[in-house]
Amino acid sequence: MAAKKPADYDELDRMRHSAAHLLAAAIMRMFPDAKLGVGPVIENGFYYDMQLPRPLTTDDFKALEKTIAALKAENLDFRREEMPLDDAIAFFKERGQDFKVDLLTDLKKHGTTNLKDEEAQDLGDAATASLYWTGDFVDLCRGPHVERSGQVGAIKLKSVSGAFWRGKAENAQLQRVYGWAFATQEELDAHLKMLEEAEKRDHRRIGKEQGLFTFSDLVGPGLPLWTPRGTLLRELLNDYVWELRKVHGYQKVAIPHITKKELYETSGHWAKYAEDLFKIETRDKHLFAMKPMNCPHHTQIFAAEPKSYRQMPVRYCETTMVYRDEQTGELSGLSRVLSITQDDAHVFCRMGQVREEAEKIWDIISKFYGTFGFELSVRLSRRDPNHPEKYLGAPEDWEKAEASLREIVEARVKDWADGPGEAAFYGPKIDFMAKDSIGRVWQVATIQLDFNQPRSFGLEYTNEKGEKEPVLMIHCAIMGAIERFMSVMIEHTGGLFPTWLAPEQLALLPVAERHLEPAAKLRDRFVAEGLRAWLDASDESVGKKVRGAEKMRIPYGLVLGDKEVPESGEWSDDTKLAVRVRGSKDAVEMTLGELVARVKEETASRKLAP
Amino acid sequence: MAAKKPADYDELDRMRHSAAHLLAAAIMRMFPDAKLGVGPVIENGFYYDMQLPRPLTTDDFKALEKTIAALKAENLDFRREEMPLDDAIAFFKERGQDFKVDLLTDLKKHGTTNLKDEEAQDLGDAATASLYWTGDFVDLCRGPHVERSGQVGAIKLKSVSGAFWRGKAENAQLQRVYGWAFATQEELDAHLKMLEEAEKRDHRRIGKEQGLFTFSDLVGPGLPLWTPRGTLLRELLNDYVWELRKVHGYQKVAIPHITKKELYETSGHWAKYAEDLFKIETRDKHLFAMKPMNCPHHTQIFAAEPKSYRQMPVRYCETTMVYRDEQTGELSGLSRVLSITQDDAHVFCRMGQVREEAEKIWDIISKFYGTFGFELSVRLSRRDPNHPEKYLGAPEDWEKAEASLREIVEARVKDWADGPGEAAFYGPKIDFMAKDSIGRVWQVATIQLDFNQPRSFGLEYTNEKGEKEPVLMIHCAIMGAIERFMSVMIEHTGGLFPTWLAPEQLALLPVAERHLEPAAKLRDRFVAEGLRAWLDASDESVGKKVRGAEKMRIPYGLVLGDKEVPESGEWSDDTKLAVRVRGSKDAVEMTLGELVARVKEETASRKLAP
Repeated sequence: MAAKKPADYDELDRMRHSAAHLLAAAIMRMFPDAKLGVGPVIENGFYYDMQLPRPLTTDDFKALEKTIAALKAENLDFRREEMPLDDAIAFFKERGQDFKVDLLTDLKKHGTTNLKDEEAQDLGDAATASLYWTGDFVDLCRGPHVERSGQVGAIKLKSVSGAFWRGKAENAQLQRVYGWAFATQEELDAHLKMLEEAEKRDHRRIGKEQGLFTFSDLVGPGLPLWTPRGTLLRELLNDYVWELRKVHGYQKVAIPHITKKELYETSGHWAKYAEDLFKIETRDKHLFAMKPMNCPHHTQIFAAEPKSYRQMPVRYCETTMVYRDEQTGELSGLSRVLSITQDDAHVFCRMGQVREEAEKIWDIISKFYGTFGFELSVRLSRRDPNHPEKYLGAPEDWEKAEASLREIVEARVKDWADGPGEAAFYGPKIDFMAKDSIGRVWQVATIQLDFNQPRSFGLEYTNEKGEKEPVLMIHCAIMGAIERFMSVMIEHTGGLFPTWLAPEQLALLPVAERHLEPAAKLRDRFVAEGLRAWLDASDESVGKKVRGAEKMRIPYGLVLGDKEVPESGEWSDDTKLAVRVRGSKDAVEMTLGELVARVKEETASRKLAP
Repeated sequence: MAAKKPADYDELDRMRHSAAHLLAAAIMRMFPDAKLGVGPVIENGFYYDMQLPRPLTTDDFKALEKTIAALKAENLDFRREEMPLDDAIAFFKERGQDFKVDLLTDLKKHGTTNLKDEEAQDLGDAATASLYWTGDFVDLCRGPHVERSGQVGAIKLKSVSGAFWRGKAENAQLQRVYGWAFATQEELDAHLKMLEEAEKRDHRRIGKEQGLFTFSDLVGPGLPLWTPRGTLLRELLNDYVWELRKVHGYQKVAIPHITKKELYETSGHWAKYAEDLFKIETRDKHLFAMKPMNCPHHTQIFAAEPKSYRQMPVRYCETTMVYRDEQTGELSGLSRVLSITQDDAHVFCRMGQVREEAEKIWDIISKFYGTFGFELSVRLSRRDPNHPEKYLGAPEDWEKAEASLREIVEARVKDWADGPGEAAFYGPKIDFMAKDSIGRVWQVATIQLDFNQPRSFGLEYTNEKGEKEPVLMIHCAIMGAIERFMSVMIEHTGGLFPTWLAPEQLALLPVAERHLEPAAKLRDRFVAEGLRAWLDASDESVGKKVRGAEKMRIPYGLVLGDKEVPESGEWSDDTKLAVRVRGSKDAVEMTLGELVARVKEETASRKLAP
């Protein structure tokens, strides 16, 4: 969780920083000899690093929170005092605050505390030190703060972990106490409830429970292995994207996962991203790289045959794994992996075709995310007008392209965010953000224009007059990385996949051995109808089977015992069934024919059901 | 083309070796100062290395062939003479045959000529040299030969290329003359005709003509880039294999292309194949490898959850690219690539399930190759009974497994080849060979049993008594490497893909601009029926369009001009069409409804048509 820069503090951040001071003040009452480090603002709260006579436990949190509440009730002033550097050093030395002295000494010697920018609120400037008083508590601090402690909102201490002073292992080890801070108790409660919900929905937990993917110590972290259930999910998602693309004239292509480095030297990626690539030295001493993206390879398919304006646009798509050399410590579940499956696409088109092609992609994105009930918002990511030197290509091309994207954005949505400086270096883009069912916002799909690579690879087509003209590329992945999309989608649905996406749509749960055969017949009947039915043939009790099917979140469950199985052992469309519908407490009575029709309809319409 | 070991010579080889001597004799008549190297037997003929006063051209071949014919007509004896080594050295020195002297000198000094075993026919033994006379031509040679030159069959010189003496670049550069030699003129003619046919069918040429795949200098050799047409072909083939597997309970899984080396240390591949792997050092200094096969990864999915006998067998399949670090010089078209797409599968089963599972795979293989009209033959590849130490696992397991495979083979085919010593080190296998339309035989699918990896990874399941039992693995790819299968299949069909497999099934060829719109309507009608129809919207002449569609080998072509397009511009099932059927000279008249039904039928039945 990154700390925020004091320069970027808004009203809420100011309050959160004051909350950090109240925590430090409470700590000083609990441990008068505590030595304080730094205490910056982070997302949803703050932390404070400190050296204490004993390890803090979460049991101490209650007492600290009580003291903080008392400090708030006293409604103390946050009072600023300026002090010459040498005086400040003497002041903190007298109080035994060695870390503050360390900061001030650096500030005096070097004109800087050598803290990371975002931790640097706890200091003065080069000439004088700035201190903040709250009652008898005093801290080295540039501010800003709220005026009185009564203005500090709702606080809850979260956790404690270890941290080295200045982040260096050779320095003293401190304790870092994290806290949440919100303007109101309601907002804090809502946040805690959201976290609790998020914890329940953690995709790593659901993935394990439902057997969607696994990791192996022998294969390594960040390299998920997809089980049959997870692979089916991936395929259903990917088939859906393909269905949406196919009607717009996309064609599948296929490329290898490696290339000579020359490809990336030409594209410009080698110079910019070489250290993020997995590199291979072949037995013939050639230098190869694993592909971190697909565009350079795709340009080579486009370039294989000369193109006429009549063939444009050319739309390639491919779902394939790309690889990036991430630090092992950064890998987490499906959110951050080494093997990234992209549902990638590249449209090679003329300048005049950008709008139509981008609109088609937007349609696909809207339809796809709408199917899951995600709420989308949009940002137009443009050049930074103050730094034209950061971007490749002629300004007039940029203007045309930005105008073209802006036109689409304005035509399609009323509320959109303007993002000057958010463009890629090779072109502007439209970014889509999805809000999930517990209110979290994830950046998802993107429509990117690219002048740069077509030029580097000399891509062109022959226009109506027989002249060569440069080609423009649009990059677009709908899911982006399937792994990351799945992590978001699993948490959004809480693992309750809609019928069309559920790896098993129907669970058949025979009560006893003698019900196995008729259950298998029923399963075959469902399968013949194109449905995904699963028969639990284990010798567990039916109660355990029911719980198992529930844990797997299978939309429809059928207990098959003497009461349910027809005497003839044969199933017909009119056979009455007691169907356990996911999310309903009581079984629903319907005929076999009705059940089949219902599951088929929910699949065909990709309904958010049952 | 590998040379054959003299020890393995059969009657035909003996004749071919004598043919090499006749070439050398003819050369000595043309260039009395020629210095001869070695002249071994190879597949379908022979070559001879020699140092000549000028580069030989194919124009010289006629004259040489004439001399050879004369030598045959003279019906000269092949006469053996033995000579002490020192005498032989003096004998060849006097004749200026420096390379023979070089061989004899080595033989005298080291007891060996230091030639590769398969070139070593041209020598004696350590004590005496063996020479062969044919008229006034004499060569250092161990034989064996035919008795008289009249017994040498039909010879044709093929080509000349460069070769270093003893294969070392620091030695003299020689000319290597290749020749074909067959017992009869008919066999030679048949072989030449087959080669001519193979040349026309070369998959590299057809692949380029039909735009199926391409190579890029920036990406590198051995790394095909699949165009939309080629990708569609791959998908149709792969979908077919999946259709055949699905009914037998296979499930798809998905794995990354890399792994920590620990996976291959455990499987045993690291010790055996490390130098064939692409290796990667990550930024965290871990050693990774690209996967050269999928089995070790798949074991980790199987091992993720404990398995009961009720779940066995477990059948995983996955079509995915594997990578092997081949020498650049060995790469050729699709026959030998670095990125190998395998339609791989692994069945984890109990010993008692081997037969049934192998039978299922055999069914799939028969059905798949039968669809293309390949004729299959079978080899049972067993242990070498004289070298039990070369194989892993207990002898009684081998016996059971071999007996199980033998039972299947005997039950299913009358003629099969026994292959003692052809097993993999981890288990016996059934190998399938496909004979193509011009008589060439290719090793294709394989059913492999494996005791070894399940043991290395500790794979087990719980049996009926609650005890752990070891698991057996069956490895099976149907196409094997899709690239290699496609190279064989393209040459087998000559690029005339059956309707179900043709990237475009119908070509719509409008005569003039005004026919474009009705042609597009017709295309949409075909597409709505689920057919693959392609509209040539270029502004070429209709003659050129027809030739284009023919070059692409599209099964059905429709010229659409004033005569063909209905006056209303609307198409109905009754509209009469003049259909150009691939392979027929004249257009066939049928209604639109009939054409649609025909293409659908040929697709559904996977007919070898039109």
